[in-house]
Amino acid sequence: MKIAIVGAGPAGSLLACYLVRRGHQVEVYERRPDPRRYDDEEGRSINLGLSARGMRALTDVGLMAEIQPLTVPMRGRAVHAPDGKVAFHPYGNRQTEILHSIRRRDLVISLINQADSAGVAFRFDTTLSALPEADAVVGADGAFSTVRTLMHRGARADFRQEYLPWGYKELTIPTMPSHHEALHVWPGGDDGLIVTHPNLDGSATATLFLPYDKLAAITDPEAFFAERFPDALALIPDLAKEFAERPVGHLVSIRTAPWHHEGQVVLIGDAAHAVYPFYGQGMNSALEDCTVLDACLDEHPDDLAAAFAEFERRRRPHTDVLDELSRQNFVELRERVRSPLHHARKRADLTLARIFPGRWVPLYTMVSHTTTPYADALAKAKRQDAVLRWAAVGAAGLAAVAMLARKVR
Amino acid sequence: MKIAIVGAGPAGSLLACYLVRRGHQVEVYERRPDPRRYDDEEGRSINLGLSARGMRALTDVGLMAEIQPLTVPMRGRAVHAPDGKVAFHPYGNRQTEILHSIRRRDLVISLINQADSAGVAFRFDTTLSALPEADAVVGADGAFSTVRTLMHRGARADFRQEYLPWGYKELTIPTMPSHHEALHVWPGGDDGLIVTHPNLDGSATATLFLPYDKLAAITDPEAFFAERFPDALALIPDLAKEFAERPVGHLVSIRTAPWHHEGQVVLIGDAAHAVYPFYGQGMNSALEDCTVLDACLDEHPDDLAAAFAEFERRRRPHTDVLDELSRQNFVELRERVRSPLHHARKRADLTLARIFPGRWVPLYTMVSHTTTPYADALAKAKRQDAVLRWAAVGAAGLAAVAMLARKVR
Ligand SMILES: Cc1cc2nc3c(=O)[nH]c(=O)nc-3n(C[C@H](O)[C@H](O)[C@H](O)COP(=O)(O)OP(=O)(O)OC[C@H]3O[C@@H](n4cnc5c(N)ncnc54)[C@H](O)[C@@H]3O)c2cc1C
Ligand SMILES: Cc1cc2nc3c(=O)[nH]c(=O)nc-3n(C[C@H](O)[C@H](O)[C@H](O)COP(=O)(O)OP(=O)(O)OC[C@H]3O[C@@H](n4cnc5c(N)ncnc54)[C@H](O)[C@@H]3O)c2cc1C
Repeated sequence: MKIAIVGAGPAGSLLACYLVRRGHQVEVYERRPDPRRYDDEEGRSINLGLSARGMRALTDVGLMAEIQPLTVPMRGRAVHAPDGKVAFHPYGNRQTEILHSIRRRDLVISLINQADSAGVAFRFDTTLSALPEADAVVGADGAFSTVRTLMHRGARADFRQEYLPWGYKELTIPTMPSHHEALHVWPGGDDGLIVTHPNLDGSATATLFLPYDKLAAITDPEAFFAERFPDALALIPDLAKEFAERPVGHLVSIRTAPWHHEGQVVLIGDAAHAVYPFYGQGMNSALEDCTVLDACLDEHPDDLAAAFAEFERRRRPHTDVLDELSRQNFVELRERVRSPLHHARKRADLTLARIFPGRWVPLYTMVSHTTTPYADALAKAKRQDAVLRWAAVGAAGLAAVAMLARKVR
Repeated sequence: MKIAIVGAGPAGSLLACYLVRRGHQVEVYERRPDPRRYDDEEGRSINLGLSARGMRALTDVGLMAEIQPLTVPMRGRAVHAPDGKVAFHPYGNRQTEILHSIRRRDLVISLINQADSAGVAFRFDTTLSALPEADAVVGADGAFSTVRTLMHRGARADFRQEYLPWGYKELTIPTMPSHHEALHVWPGGDDGLIVTHPNLDGSATATLFLPYDKLAAITDPEAFFAERFPDALALIPDLAKEFAERPVGHLVSIRTAPWHHEGQVVLIGDAAHAVYPFYGQGMNSALEDCTVLDACLDEHPDDLAAAFAEFERRRRPHTDVLDELSRQNFVELRERVRSPLHHARKRADLTLARIFPGRWVPLYTMVSHTTTPYADALAKAKRQDAVLRWAAVGAAGLAAVAMLARKVR
């Protein structure tokens, strides 16, 4: 069968590897130039946190060994307090419970090379505005998917697009003085948030998230940093220049249905479900889509309509939950990581996980370090929370009984 | 100022009356032919329930006296049980707490005549696909607004479009044997819902709402009615013919933001907020938009940007609540109106309203028979519910104390 994929981002180029392995004739159309020839990052989300789901999907096509050396481990969060103190909080109990920072470009080039050598045809510099000729078309063309628009035209499609009222700017930290192997966070509450991902060369990319009105009101970025994030100011030597030159990035959440049309079209990745980036799961869920779709094609090898329908049925409830989790983690990153109580709770979670290995798994661990489907992870976390609450009630009850017993005696 | 309105539906033609009164030069573009010359109903939602908000808006431009004779009062709901029994439940305690059934066409023609004679220029048979030349453009072009799409292009707009998985068909009841002055309901649970609005000539328009799969599965409409709605079957002599000829209508809910752009464009009516029709408030809220926008123009006569921004700030929270209420009322109409408990609760509400006039107002009454803004109505209803709950707890508590007291004695 001839299958056309629109978009050679993480989702499209990984799916190309899966589909060519199934024996299909695969063609990928990509608006941008071949990243192997040109370096055009557009300065947007240039490094990302790869976690268990993405790694599992890359392992399935035999790429993880090649990609591993391109990543920098992030072993936990380094939280910066206003006074400049840095507190390190590990992501998990085990060596494997870490994230991996990777340049989007490096990941995509590996995927394209792999697909290319397996016989996938790539058409770069090609912006599609109509569906290409093929037995089926996969829309992997990101949050503003043209394939989605074409597929939904005139149809009874549900669609929800929501912008976070915060934009972002990417800035460069040439060297991180401590905790290079960490995701650094400056939680600024309603006044902003900085998150950094490390690069192989010892530098890090900082992303400043800020409400639009505050972002627009900054006339002197150095003065702004001196007031809000003084210790970050010292780390970004080119602040004024970068702040002036780099575009403001926007954050959009997208949910939609249906994801497919009669075995002819199917959406994956951000085209089907875009989330705010605060759980670091956008790309990971896009890559995981490919494994789920591949499994559905396995079950319905001769019936694309059934495979696509099953893919949406099986997958959408989980990406809907990821959308919720990504919203909640925005609050966590900008607010709660400042609170000692929050860290006490996190530590208690990790301690329980050590005492009951496999039976008590913190939500963050399930989402980032396992491939438990998102909705199942959330459901399990809620059950754990209920146990904790009942334990607290039970403890209070026991204390009351003990007091009464003393009085009675 | 020259203001262009796109859409001569209820919202656009009423706003034309308001704007020409403010001294503006108003031009209205409408895709369909002039309804005063042609009868082209397309068979869709041909009669609607006008309630307090819409009436208030029509009174403001002096039209209610002219429109009143075109309406049929609906004094309550006539609920049809499976055994054919009909129970009548009045809408309120007072003569004025009723709805008014009107043909959409009659309403729009009155509005167009009024606007026309005040100097508004109408351009019928004109489908706009670009914004017209004017100092400001009003998008009153309904749920699938072209003005909205043009205004949001490239902007960070929030947008949510959701289809109910139920479609509808309109059918004709030449004479309603009893309770002509009522809204008739056949609550069929998950198996369908029929609602009728009366017409001046003694006939009524029935709307059959059904899940799409069930609608598609009907091969013999008479057999379907004989099984599900036997007493309705007898009322619709042309059932088979109408069922085959009339199109399936779709129900969409739309929320979006922003509603305006820099004093140049503003959205009203279904273009800004479309709701499921189960609270009978879609057109009423569209008409009410005109009074709210007019008030904002009063406050900012020389600053359209400020007026449009204030309109959205003041109005959107209320239409968001209407969206929720319209979803809830879908459950009420198809399920709860079957339950005696529900009617007991409704009667208790009306009794409390009689005992505490003005202080206890059922939610349905506030939404349909007053102009209390939707969100304020919901908040007040929630407070009333809390009082009822506490009263119940209090009664139970008193009973318990009484029992204890008896035991102690
Ligand atoms: C600030 C930020 C930080 C993030 N951090 C993380 C993180 O730490 N971890 C994580 O997992 N995710 C993260 N994400 C999310 C991640 O970037 C996306 O989820 C991921 O890129 C989605 O992959 P995709 O292949 O579905 O879409 P995209 O990456 O958007 O790729 C779509 C491709 O389609 C092409 N295209 C679009 N339209 C057309 C057309 N009409 N014709 C031809 N080609 C077309 C585009 O050029 C593009 O190459 C972050 C996102 C942002 C904004
Ligand atoms: C089954 C059903 C029952 C309903 N019952 C009730 C009820 O009982 N009570 C109630 O209050 N509401 C009810 N409604 C809702 C009501 O019909 C709508 O809310 C109301 O019509 C909205 O008015 P509007 O003027 O904003 O939009 P519309 O009525 O949709 O008018 C928009 C106008 O713009 C024109 N137009 C569109 N695009 C263009 C373009 N590009 N160029 C030029 N012209 C264009 C259209 O032809 C149309 O005339 C019901 C709806 C349905 C579907």
